[in-house]
Amino acid sequence: MTRFFVEAQDLSGDTLHLTGENFQHAKVLRLKPGERMLVCDGQGEEALCAVRQVGAAELELEVLERRESETEAAVRVSVYMAFPKADKLEHVIQKATELGAYEIVAFPSARCVSRPDEKSLKKKLERWQKIAASAAEQSGRGRIPEVVTLGSFKEALGRAKQADKALLFYENEHAVTLRMALESGAFQTVSLLTGPEGGLEEAEVDQARKAGLQVCTLGSRILRCETAPLCALSAVMYAAGEF
Amino acid sequence: MTRFFVEAQDLSGDTLHLTGENFQHAKVLRLKPGERMLVCDGQGEEALCAVRQVGAAELELEVLERRESETEAAVRVSVYMAFPKADKLEHVIQKATELGAYEIVAFPSARCVSRPDEKSLKKKLERWQKIAASAAEQSGRGRIPEVVTLGSFKEALGRAKQADKALLFYENEHAVTLRMALESGAFQTVSLLTGPEGGLEEAEVDQARKAGLQVCTLGSRILRCETAPLCALSAVMYAAGEF
Repeated sequence: MTRFFVEAQDLSGDTLHLTGENFQHAKVLRLKPGERMLVCDGQGEEALCAVRQVGAAELELEVLERRESETEAAVRVSVYMAFPKADKLEHVIQKATELGAYEIVAFPSARCVSRPDEKSLKKKLERWQKIAASAAEQSGRGRIPEVVTLGSFKEALGRAKQADKALLFYENEHAVTLRMALESGAFQTVSLLTGPEGGLEEAEVDQARKAGLQVCTLGSRILRCETAPLCALSAVMYAAGEF
Repeated sequence: MTRFFVEAQDLSGDTLHLTGENFQHAKVLRLKPGERMLVCDGQGEEALCAVRQVGAAELELEVLERRESETEAAVRVSVYMAFPKADKLEHVIQKATELGAYEIVAFPSARCVSRPDEKSLKKKLERWQKIAASAAEQSGRGRIPEVVTLGSFKEALGRAKQADKALLFYENEHAVTLRMALESGAFQTVSLLTGPEGGLEEAEVDQARKAGLQVCTLGSRILRCETAPLCALSAVMYAAGEF
């Protein structure tokens, strides 16, 4: 079923209106009176609606049923990724959204070759958030993951460690597997932290360990920086019973 | 450690020679006498070598030790993917190789919009095999997954079902999860079959079921055709104890 995202305050009442970009999209789909769709607030609440009337600049909808989204994962996984080159971050935002990530957090680390400056960041964040919204729509999610950027590696550690499982993946860790880290206790929230193209520095990994993150391996093959977070996310979703 | 792939017959003896593209690559890396590298046959056998002499058109290597690759997964996972658009297949070949797939098998299905003709196939296969080789090198694998193309969906089913677990992922299956399919018995070989951009037709899914494949879900979110095989592969590697 087609899915539209609106602001939370626009989801109340028995009648909803699709305007602006949503209206343009509905026009392309040639939605006719009686046809059904889902309207979501992007935060997990949604309304099953039917088209009542097609206007010149808006679509009037009748709310048939309100419900919580059925496609959101019970486990909240935050993907922490050191800034990679732009196209890779966009790839990870799109795929992590499909795979059910709760949020995507980008941060600088020592070997990052790409680090957006303050000035360009606002525009980039808008673009990244749009990618997440579009992937959420396509994959049928009721929530649009927030894309967050942080100013330092330390800040990333401080934020990541608040999860029940705060994990950092490092190619030189061979003893502790993701499975060992996940099976050591129940969890509802998970942080998955991975490095940039050149990897994390050993000093950064030590710093993370001291901050309370668990350092683990994703196996004996070296994964590219855009593959590691998606591999870890898929495995966590599987381990959490999502499929 | 740098990794070079040679033909199996070129891996015998106490002295090896890197020529052609491998020699060019070694020159770029400015390898000097005494420096070490791995030379692999791309089928799981490898030799730890040291540079003996840098010639004008070849590098002479001394074999220090022969061994089986330590980076190959114990489980053999075959990724069966209905032909997607070209860039997506290339993406899946690269990523599935990193993630440890044993082979990547592309086949036509009813809703494939892209289906290479006989004439262009040979050239494309060469290109795809090169992508696999390059990803195997970068991820430190000892084996280059073979890229195979088949002529029909029926042929794909017949080949896929020979694995201990032959699984097809379908967005309209809600009862059987990947976990249920994997936990129903031990496995050493797995086939993972996924559809093209427009999905598999219900009749194809029925046909697969009749052929003996297990139809399962990858969760309640709709994954793009290039995301589904990599998500399933990551989860199978995790379930098989790879990380």
